[in-house]
Amino acid sequence: MSDKAKPLLNAVIKHIRENVDPISEEFHRLADSNENRWSYHPRQTELMEGAKQKARESGLWNFFLPNAETGEGLSNLDYAYIAAELGKNPLASETLNCSAPDTGNMEVLERVGTQQQKDTWLKPLLAGEIRSAFAMTEPDVASSDAKNISTSAVLENGEWVINGEKYYISGAGDPRCKIMIVMVKTSPDAEAFRQQSQILVPMDHPGVEILGPMHVFGHDDAPHGHMHIKFTNVRVPEENMLWGEGRGFEISQVRLGPGRIHHCMRSIGQAEKALDLMIERGLSRVAFGKKIVDLGKNMETISRAKIEIESMRLLVLKAAKAMDVLGNKEARIWVSMIKAKVPEQVCDIIDQAMQVHGATGISQWSPLSGMYAQQRTLRYADGPDEVHHHVIARHEVKTYKDSNSRQTAAKAHTEARGSAGFMG
Amino acid sequence: MSDKAKPLLNAVIKHIRENVDPISEEFHRLADSNENRWSYHPRQTELMEGAKQKARESGLWNFFLPNAETGEGLSNLDYAYIAAELGKNPLASETLNCSAPDTGNMEVLERVGTQQQKDTWLKPLLAGEIRSAFAMTEPDVASSDAKNISTSAVLENGEWVINGEKYYISGAGDPRCKIMIVMVKTSPDAEAFRQQSQILVPMDHPGVEILGPMHVFGHDDAPHGHMHIKFTNVRVPEENMLWGEGRGFEISQVRLGPGRIHHCMRSIGQAEKALDLMIERGLSRVAFGKKIVDLGKNMETISRAKIEIESMRLLVLKAAKAMDVLGNKEARIWVSMIKAKVPEQVCDIIDQAMQVHGATGISQWSPLSGMYAQQRTLRYADGPDEVHHHVIARHEVKTYKDSNSRQTAAKAHTEARGSAGFMG
Amino acid sequence: MSDKAKPLLNAVIKHIRENVDPISEEFHRLADSNENRWSYHPRQTELMEGAKQKARESGLWNFFLPNAETGEGLSNLDYAYIAAELGKNPLASETLNCSAPDTGNMEVLERVGTQQQKDTWLKPLLAGEIRSAFAMTEPDVASSDAKNISTSAVLENGEWVINGEKYYISGAGDPRCKIMIVMVKTSPDAEAFRQQSQILVPMDHPGVEILGPMHVFGHDDAPHGHMHIKFTNVRVPEENMLWGEGRGFEISQVRLGPGRIHHCMRSIGQAEKALDLMIERGLSRVAFGKKIVDLGKNMETISRAKIEIESMRLLVLKAAKAMDVLGNKEARIWVSMIKAKVPEQVCDIIDQAMQVHGATGISQWSPLSGMYAQQRTLRYADGPDEVHHHVIARHEVKTYKDSNSRQTAAKAHTEARGSAGFMG
Amino acid sequence: MSDKAKPLLNAVIKHIRENVDPISEEFHRLADSNENRWSYHPRQTELMEGAKQKARESGLWNFFLPNAETGEGLSNLDYAYIAAELGKNPLASETLNCSAPDTGNMEVLERVGTQQQKDTWLKPLLAGEIRSAFAMTEPDVASSDAKNISTSAVLENGEWVINGEKYYISGAGDPRCKIMIVMVKTSPDAEAFRQQSQILVPMDHPGVEILGPMHVFGHDDAPHGHMHIKFTNVRVPEENMLWGEGRGFEISQVRLGPGRIHHCMRSIGQAEKALDLMIERGLSRVAFGKKIVDLGKNMETISRAKIEIESMRLLVLKAAKAMDVLGNKEARIWVSMIKAKVPEQVCDIIDQAMQVHGATGISQWSPLSGMYAQQRTLRYADGPDEVHHHVIARHEVKTYKDSNSRQTAAKAHTEARGSAGFMG
Repeated sequence: MSDKAKPLLNAVIKHIRENVDPISEEFHRLADSNENRWSYHPRQTELMEGAKQKARESGLWNFFLPNAETGEGLSNLDYAYIAAELGKNPLASETLNCSAPDTGNMEVLERVGTQQQKDTWLKPLLAGEIRSAFAMTEPDVASSDAKNISTSAVLENGEWVINGEKYYISGAGDPRCKIMIVMVKTSPDAEAFRQQSQILVPMDHPGVEILGPMHVFGHDDAPHGHMHIKFTNVRVPEENMLWGEGRGFEISQVRLGPGRIHHCMRSIGQAEKALDLMIERGLSRVAFGKKIVDLGKNMETISRAKIEIESMRLLVLKAAKAMDVLGNKEARIWVSMIKAKVPEQVCDIIDQAMQVHGATGISQWSPLSGMYAQQRTLRYADGPDEVHHHVIARHEVKTYKDSNSRQTAAKAHTEARGSAGFMG
Repeated sequence: MSDKAKPLLNAVIKHIRENVDPISEEFHRLADSNENRWSYHPRQTELMEGAKQKARESGLWNFFLPNAETGEGLSNLDYAYIAAELGKNPLASETLNCSAPDTGNMEVLERVGTQQQKDTWLKPLLAGEIRSAFAMTEPDVASSDAKNISTSAVLENGEWVINGEKYYISGAGDPRCKIMIVMVKTSPDAEAFRQQSQILVPMDHPGVEILGPMHVFGHDDAPHGHMHIKFTNVRVPEENMLWGEGRGFEISQVRLGPGRIHHCMRSIGQAEKALDLMIERGLSRVAFGKKIVDLGKNMETISRAKIEIESMRLLVLKAAKAMDVLGNKEARIWVSMIKAKVPEQVCDIIDQAMQVHGATGISQWSPLSGMYAQQRTLRYADGPDEVHHHVIARHEVKTYKDSNSRQTAAKAHTEARGSAGFMG
Repeated sequence: MSDKAKPLLNAVIKHIRENVDPISEEFHRLADSNENRWSYHPRQTELMEGAKQKARESGLWNFFLPNAETGEGLSNLDYAYIAAELGKNPLASETLNCSAPDTGNMEVLERVGTQQQKDTWLKPLLAGEIRSAFAMTEPDVASSDAKNISTSAVLENGEWVINGEKYYISGAGDPRCKIMIVMVKTSPDAEAFRQQSQILVPMDHPGVEILGPMHVFGHDDAPHGHMHIKFTNVRVPEENMLWGEGRGFEISQVRLGPGRIHHCMRSIGQAEKALDLMIERGLSRVAFGKKIVDLGKNMETISRAKIEIESMRLLVLKAAKAMDVLGNKEARIWVSMIKAKVPEQVCDIIDQAMQVHGATGISQWSPLSGMYAQQRTLRYADGPDEVHHHVIARHEVKTYKDSNSRQTAAKAHTEARGSAGFMG
Repeated sequence: MSDKAKPLLNAVIKHIRENVDPISEEFHRLADSNENRWSYHPRQTELMEGAKQKARESGLWNFFLPNAETGEGLSNLDYAYIAAELGKNPLASETLNCSAPDTGNMEVLERVGTQQQKDTWLKPLLAGEIRSAFAMTEPDVASSDAKNISTSAVLENGEWVINGEKYYISGAGDPRCKIMIVMVKTSPDAEAFRQQSQILVPMDHPGVEILGPMHVFGHDDAPHGHMHIKFTNVRVPEENMLWGEGRGFEISQVRLGPGRIHHCMRSIGQAEKALDLMIERGLSRVAFGKKIVDLGKNMETISRAKIEIESMRLLVLKAAKAMDVLGNKEARIWVSMIKAKVPEQVCDIIDQAMQVHGATGISQWSPLSGMYAQQRTLRYADGPDEVHHHVIARHEVKTYKDSNSRQTAAKAHTEARGSAGFMG
């Protein structure tokens, strides 16, 4: 972590302890008792805006943008340290204007947006006045293969006409959500990675219809929500296109790397929280004459969780560093590695914490089942584990093929017959 | 499976296909749209009672009671085959009056109830007129160690006075639930396994207060529900005691064996369903130029699921057979083996099916996340996996100690030094 | 197990205890000190022939052949029970003339051999006078895909001329091994499964050259051995062909099913032995103030081993039963299931037993590392795990496609959107 | 890696490629054909001494000693990078005088030896003229609990009289091995961690009897060897004691940390080698119409191996850094983390590489089974995995107990009932 960022990290931790933790219980209690689950109670708004104001006053605002004029100029590495802390209280990110998917959307707008796009959408986003969504996944195709994207945008009379269906559009249920970036197919006849584009669609645009909320293990996460939206002849002006037709994939390069690092680092924060809950429960309950922590394999479970948390943390920091040093494109294998490893392993750790809790572990009295649901989702989001594993393996095989010395050494063994075998 | 039971199995399959599957969608749609989630819509009642009536007419009613005068006299083995089918449609069991926890409660009443207890509670249960619950788990202690049970019952003036808290009382949310069997501590100074008793408490009794529903991964399973109940000076007549003071554990022996076999066999039905959904999805979607089923490790995942399903089925059938032949007590190790293996492995299979589904797999559009939540719960219910593993291992170690020939053979190796080592 | 076979099992157990266990230490000590490791010490021969004679006298001889005139007429199911016992002492099988690969070779000769082939080779094999080998695997190709077999046999002037290389020919190092069955490619232009044949080649035939022994984790298993053999213009008479040109695969069907069941059941015997060694060691050593068995996860490890042993046993018995009832061809999916599951899992159990033993576990003082090496080998032998998983999955997918009711039920879920999701 | 060390790493890689790889095949061929397996062929000595001389000339000699006057003054971190390279050719370490257990022994002598001890033993060790061994593990007790050490040393007339048995004394078979450091119990009545001492015993001392070599999965690793040694009234002068009576544990602190880092980093080198062999084999063989690398789960296996290799590398580097910065004692939790994670995971990776190789993978034609055996051993050496897991967990629980903020945050969840549960 850079010297510049250390005071920031400390300030964030202080902010969470002083301004976020204390409002959390009331905020969630109000949510539970809110009659209209898809809105915020005025007192919720008051609490949240109060915490946001305090963050602004402390200069803890919009620091997510790496090396940007608009933000703190944090490197991905520095941000990663902070993200682990943000992972421990689900309200923390928003108070700092660092919530997904706004961060990714703001980063994209900042990097490739026109001045007009920035004025209209980036400005109020940076100010924390509105929220945004990103519409990528489709219910009818395996959209992990981006070539399958079927939502179409056709240019007619200076307007893009959009038709199709998207789902799991996180944050689109929030009444403050005003704008979506939508991945569409604009050029079905172009080469595979030039067929897609990303385009700005206001939430309240004619033809945009929210069909309903998607659930995640029974949670609808209202009012944030993971919405299912239908686009019927939605017409937006030509200038709503981002960066240019056919550049959808390029834009994904911009957004996905940092976003995955933030996700994974927050996941590690969740794993640390799960480990603490496991230990706390294990120390506070007794069965068969012993503290639960001392029964059976529980100590080994704690050790393995700890080892994996540290391994994951180092790998995520390495990926962040790679992104800072090599750029998003060159770092993509590192990013795939963390994306394929972290959520799967964090799910396991949370599951073990649940098991130590007994029935309470899956109940609303514990955050664990919600944490599990959220981490389980990440094993699909931005590409399922399997796609990332394939990317990594293909790259590793190619690297092997490109390395004469690796091949020479390996062939010495695979082709030798006899004593060479003992070369261990 | 006995020749006697085969026609029954076929009749059950036919009943589910003709009378239960066709009402399922409407039944669940009505549940979703019901204003009071903790009640049944009249049309739901009509559908369920219609299916129950058809089951009665076909003679498919109350066949769960093994070797009982009141039931079909099915062996545990025969029932196990049927339970796997019941696991595939969540409405099926109730239409046949074979739902948990009623089956366990009816079995207990039939085996150890007084005539008066039978007349008052068993009769309407067998008739499918009321439902029941079993209150065992407590929020404040590790109740997997039954000695920890803290809900007390004290005899005063011919009445038991009950105080304490229970949670995860499944089915207690159903408006038709009229009676609970409650595990209480009656004799804190007796030896460990004579301290507990089971006692009948009507739901609407003064002092019984439903504090709210417990959630399971965000599901409250209304109106069935998993309720949190407080008992404050609940006074029931002395004759509500089951079988006699201090016999709570003995009664558990009666109920738990068969119940666990039913659970595990229904779990296998769930695993089969998950496997079918995995294959269906894998065949119907294409990514990267191939059907998903043909990508990466998916075929091996299917194979491993199939192998484990068959292994689990054989183990559960063996446990059922052991219970028929050896009795509940002697069969308990076999029952612990299935209880420790089946839910954990079925969770894995469902999780893999989810992964093949992409985001739909965790949504309300697929039954998979609900199935996962339910199976995950079973890893705690009736004792967490860890307790069962300990019981099994302790028994295996004891068996080893009791076997001269096993010890002799093992010691020949562990004490020898030299060529004996090569005896592989 | 059939009533007929129970006394046989008991007689086998008695024979092992009385006639095999007592000679084992001396037999292996002699092997260790033998100057020529590729021969038997005369005293070894004496011990072995003595035990064989006792088996003959007790009528425990050649009972491996299922439903054969020459053997006991044991079903595969009955034999399976016995094989688990044979798995516990590596000398046991040979004393009963039930060693691999002789059993498979004798079965093949008995089923498809000509009278002359039977007179020349089956007779001395059944008498226990000679031993035999089976040459299938090749060093230069992935012979798990049998189409890759490259050892050729060309008919010239009434003689088959064989050229190629085979390795891991188990038993070919034994000085008593006189005959090999060799898998060759005779018809490279025929359809894929008619290209191969099996042919009899005497060990001492001109052109047969033993290049050396292959090792298994450092063991060469002398004098039995896993030999590497080169065939250079080996000419055998036309009548050495088994069953007819192009029927190599059909013959494999005959031999592989029962052989895999024997292997898997012996593997289970090994797992039981490993579990006993684990318990014995766990009870006899103390660390940190406790018996090792009571430390950490060891009790759960014992429980999981026990559960899997029983699951595997039931699955192997089911496969044996399927083979008895349905025949080798129809039972092949069951056989693939045990082949894919059992050796992998037995390896794990042995590995856990090793870990409990500390350094002794991998030394020559314990049979565990040899047992591990042997079981590890089985994950390749007769097709690697991966091939069996693929066979199972392909069959399961096909079964699904052929079942209207499974498809209907699954599609009801995968196509529904909405309440159907809650149908768990 | 420090700027100072980078040229050294490159020089080491160059040395291995130019001076070690080219002699490896001949060296091992000579070993195989050597009549006396427990000696070196003169040509082997010539090859090894030649490579050592070249290393000396290049200044690549004795650089293992961190921050020492006698060595290169490498930090643990810098050394770790180099150790991964050394892991890829089993001759490499010795050519640089960096072999275990000499490195640990030299480090101990350098740190705590008297001038006389240094003159007599350290000098020829640093010169590469003799070799050494470390005798710790005992066959009769669970020596992972060091309090169990039973080899005794009693002071009589200015001499320590040593009695007991040790085994798995690696390197003690080498004819050049002249000195052992032996862990003995000197003060059975002192407090637990002051009972042990370490003492110098020359190999050829009266009363030192090599009972034989211990095997590792069938390998005896002659002539290096893992010897079983009996000490019968072995009398050594009082001044052979290292550092002082009762300081055995303190000395272990000195040696174990760096040794474990070297081991783990070499293990990672082995995993990289296994991965290369897996890819090479997967690319060079075809089955069922595809390269093996493209079948089933093989690509995912490669990806997972790659991810874990990078995770392990980062964790080992972190542990090395911790040792440099915090000292051996404070870094011990990091060292336990790598010791518990690395060998277990490297075993898995090697096992997967074996599986891709088919039968060749477990044969003497491939280094994989030897690599597996070696890594498997590391799961016991210097304390079994289980002991390290316990140390880590105990430390983590203690850290939790010492942290008010972690406890406060966790208790907020475990004690809350209600909306707090949703705080995910």
